[in-house]
Amino acid sequence: MKLHHIIESQQFTVPVLMELFNLADSMERIVARGGTRDYSNKIMALLFYEHSTRTRFSFESAMMRLGGKVIATESAAEFSSFTHGESLEDTVRVVGDYSDVIVMRHYEVGGAARAAAISAVPVINAGDGKGGQHPTQALLDLYTIHREIKTIDGVKVALVGNLAEGRTVRSLAYLLGKFERVKLYFVAPKPLQMQEDIIHYLNNHKVWFTQEENLREIINEVDVVYMTRLEATEGEGMRPSGFFMDESLMKLLPKKAIVMHPLPRANEISPGVDADHRAVYFRQTRNGILVRMALLVSIFDGR
Amino acid sequence: MKLHHIIESQQFTVPVLMELFNLADSMERIVARGGTRDYSNKIMALLFYEHSTRTRFSFESAMMRLGGKVIATESAAEFSSFTHGESLEDTVRVVGDYSDVIVMRHYEVGGAARAAAISAVPVINAGDGKGGQHPTQALLDLYTIHREIKTIDGVKVALVGNLAEGRTVRSLAYLLGKFERVKLYFVAPKPLQMQEDIIHYLNNHKVWFTQEENLREIINEVDVVYMTRLEATEGEGMRPSGFFMDESLMKLLPKKAIVMHPLPRANEISPGVDADHRAVYFRQTRNGILVRMALLVSIFDGR
Amino acid sequence: MKLHHIIESQQFTVPVLMELFNLADSMERIVARGGTRDYSNKIMALLFYEHSTRTRFSFESAMMRLGGKVIATESAAEFSSFTHGESLEDTVRVVGDYSDVIVMRHYEVGGAARAAAISAVPVINAGDGKGGQHPTQALLDLYTIHREIKTIDGVKVALVGNLAEGRTVRSLAYLLGKFERVKLYFVAPKPLQMQEDIIHYLNNHKVWFTQEENLREIINEVDVVYMTRLEATEGEGMRPSGFFMDESLMKLLPKKAIVMHPLPRANEISPGVDADHRAVYFRQTRNGILVRMALLVSIFDGR
Repeated sequence: MKLHHIIESQQFTVPVLMELFNLADSMERIVARGGTRDYSNKIMALLFYEHSTRTRFSFESAMMRLGGKVIATESAAEFSSFTHGESLEDTVRVVGDYSDVIVMRHYEVGGAARAAAISAVPVINAGDGKGGQHPTQALLDLYTIHREIKTIDGVKVALVGNLAEGRTVRSLAYLLGKFERVKLYFVAPKPLQMQEDIIHYLNNHKVWFTQEENLREIINEVDVVYMTRLEATEGEGMRPSGFFMDESLMKLLPKKAIVMHPLPRANEISPGVDADHRAVYFRQTRNGILVRMALLVSIFDGR
Repeated sequence: MKLHHIIESQQFTVPVLMELFNLADSMERIVARGGTRDYSNKIMALLFYEHSTRTRFSFESAMMRLGGKVIATESAAEFSSFTHGESLEDTVRVVGDYSDVIVMRHYEVGGAARAAAISAVPVINAGDGKGGQHPTQALLDLYTIHREIKTIDGVKVALVGNLAEGRTVRSLAYLLGKFERVKLYFVAPKPLQMQEDIIHYLNNHKVWFTQEENLREIINEVDVVYMTRLEATEGEGMRPSGFFMDESLMKLLPKKAIVMHPLPRANEISPGVDADHRAVYFRQTRNGILVRMALLVSIFDGR
Repeated sequence: MKLHHIIESQQFTVPVLMELFNLADSMERIVARGGTRDYSNKIMALLFYEHSTRTRFSFESAMMRLGGKVIATESAAEFSSFTHGESLEDTVRVVGDYSDVIVMRHYEVGGAARAAAISAVPVINAGDGKGGQHPTQALLDLYTIHREIKTIDGVKVALVGNLAEGRTVRSLAYLLGKFERVKLYFVAPKPLQMQEDIIHYLNNHKVWFTQEENLREIINEVDVVYMTRLEATEGEGMRPSGFFMDESLMKLLPKKAIVMHPLPRANEISPGVDADHRAVYFRQTRNGILVRMALLVSIFDGR
């Protein structure tokens, strides 16, 4: 498997995903021994037009575990001085001369695709705009289900929170739709339910789904509860109890099911849940390193 | 000696300090040849909730001389985007998945201890709040006295400047109190004298000290003059002459005594003093690298 | 050739420039294989008192291709916390203890020279003030002419844009004046023509030059068109057509001539020109890496 630009979840077929996940599994041995020097001749440029320290750290750590080097900028202020109004295309051409791969975060939908169109080096999309993509997050989420549940075909997943605006859950719903016999439970207050485009896609691909307003009603049926934030604007008082995870609700969750969260969490998961072995959100972070290492190896070395 | 979390000066016993200082001595050979690759499989995360470029540079340089890698953030603005209001504990758990040691600067007293309580990887406190600790600074100060004066037992140290609010001098006074027959001269304007908690501690431990208002009166008695800033609010006109170091005062300083300063200095030491071999404040900075390297080695490799 | 501080273009003689350019040529093989580990025991400190992400990336990439490590700060805000009003000299002394070479960007003319005067490690000037120097930019420009045209003696160069305030074109004019039979065409609106000091220098050194107001008039005579920005204050409507490069003008440019630009460009070169093999501005960026690598090797290893 040879990868080049990583721009959107849609570009991955199920066989490529499985090959990527096998490679990610093998990365664990490298992390366990602290890393390799195999890619010490590679430089990653992190070209972030908006702050995302968490995503930056994950990519930097993945690159360093492979022995590689990193040059990075993530401040909007820096960028205005960087570019002096130059086109995204010019900036990407220049940064491509300084590096072997560009990881780009941009505030506009399609920013990464524009970069990829002219870049001499591979471009990885690390988030492009509110309604855009963040494919490596979707991949690490799917990898976590694969690793924890052992299978993705036939998995039953509750997606909980602000589904209307959550880039993460939208991408994940899309990727899950590629697999067989998946069942999706969209649990959100009505105004924050999954939008028409995803619903349309799922109907077209004959993916089973239901829309719910209380996690408690369906929690005993699912393999995965994927929690996300309700926007702060909802207000503490307004917060409906059906979109929360706590110790009492964990008692209803099947024994082999898991609870995921893309982090950072606000208060939608009680800290008392953390010690439960079914709470995998911190393992999810670790899986992000493995998936990003696998992507980098596939870009640098893949056949 | 195996170290894990480095949270406060109090955790170090005199034998551990001496072992650490011997290790620091041996680090000088590594620095002289530009570094080692022995720790190229280690990643340090610098998790700074407030800016401190000087401290960051010192830790980064120490880590790199050991062959290690660094991921870093130090901007408050970045952190607000990093955490989106998540708990310190959640942030530390995530960053621990990206790294092998966390160096943390926090604006709250006890921040580092909270991090250490839940961290899967060692945490080094690089300053926690105004009245908190900065143990690696205190260690490098003590190491400088050890290196320059050859002994700490029986040393006579003048601490000069704003002693009431100086985190550095407070920590150093504390550490010095662990040794035998130490004499401390607190030289400060009355409102800026050493606070009750330290005075109480020294009385309890039967450490000899005196409180003075003019460095000139006691400079001929001491082995170490540890200068610090008087706060800018004191005003140029208000600045009492007894808390300054210049060439004329250096004539009164014993030949084997030294002048220290944690830097940055304002104008409390005349630049004319710099060329005097007894002015060791720039060697102090270099000693900081050695002590931080020794701490890292003791964390990664200690038995 | 052993280099130490790199402060201003004037310090380079023609033989030293030629030796440097030969070394830069040889760096291309190192870049082609992704880098070397030869300088893995070296640390570069990037001490930027103002943002310049582009220049920082170029130096970082050059250092990393040589196997070296980088510690960096480039935010004015950070610096105010770094220095707390300390002198430039104190800061440089401290940073010199953390590193093997300092690359400095300062807002004051002469900042780098002040640093070099007291620094224990070599200082490279990466720009000092509006009317100051940026010698590595001038070197990479000259290297690009050397590489593309094969000779600098006898070269005919049009310098286009805001010549009065352009640090880049001023430095380049100065360096070109060191070579034989060079002809310079200064193409600028009258109020933005080359200033008296450079004119005086060229007259003294008997360098042929002319002052023009329309690139079209002389483009068929030259080997190099060096485009720069007209200041934004000129206004779109005010912009005289004689200082632009587009496809129609490219038809008048000799076949072996080249078009250069220090980047970032605004709209003074039409994107339609990019595909022309005579448009070398993106190769110029790549040459910057080679020249900076050659400077670093000459500092670390030169005899």
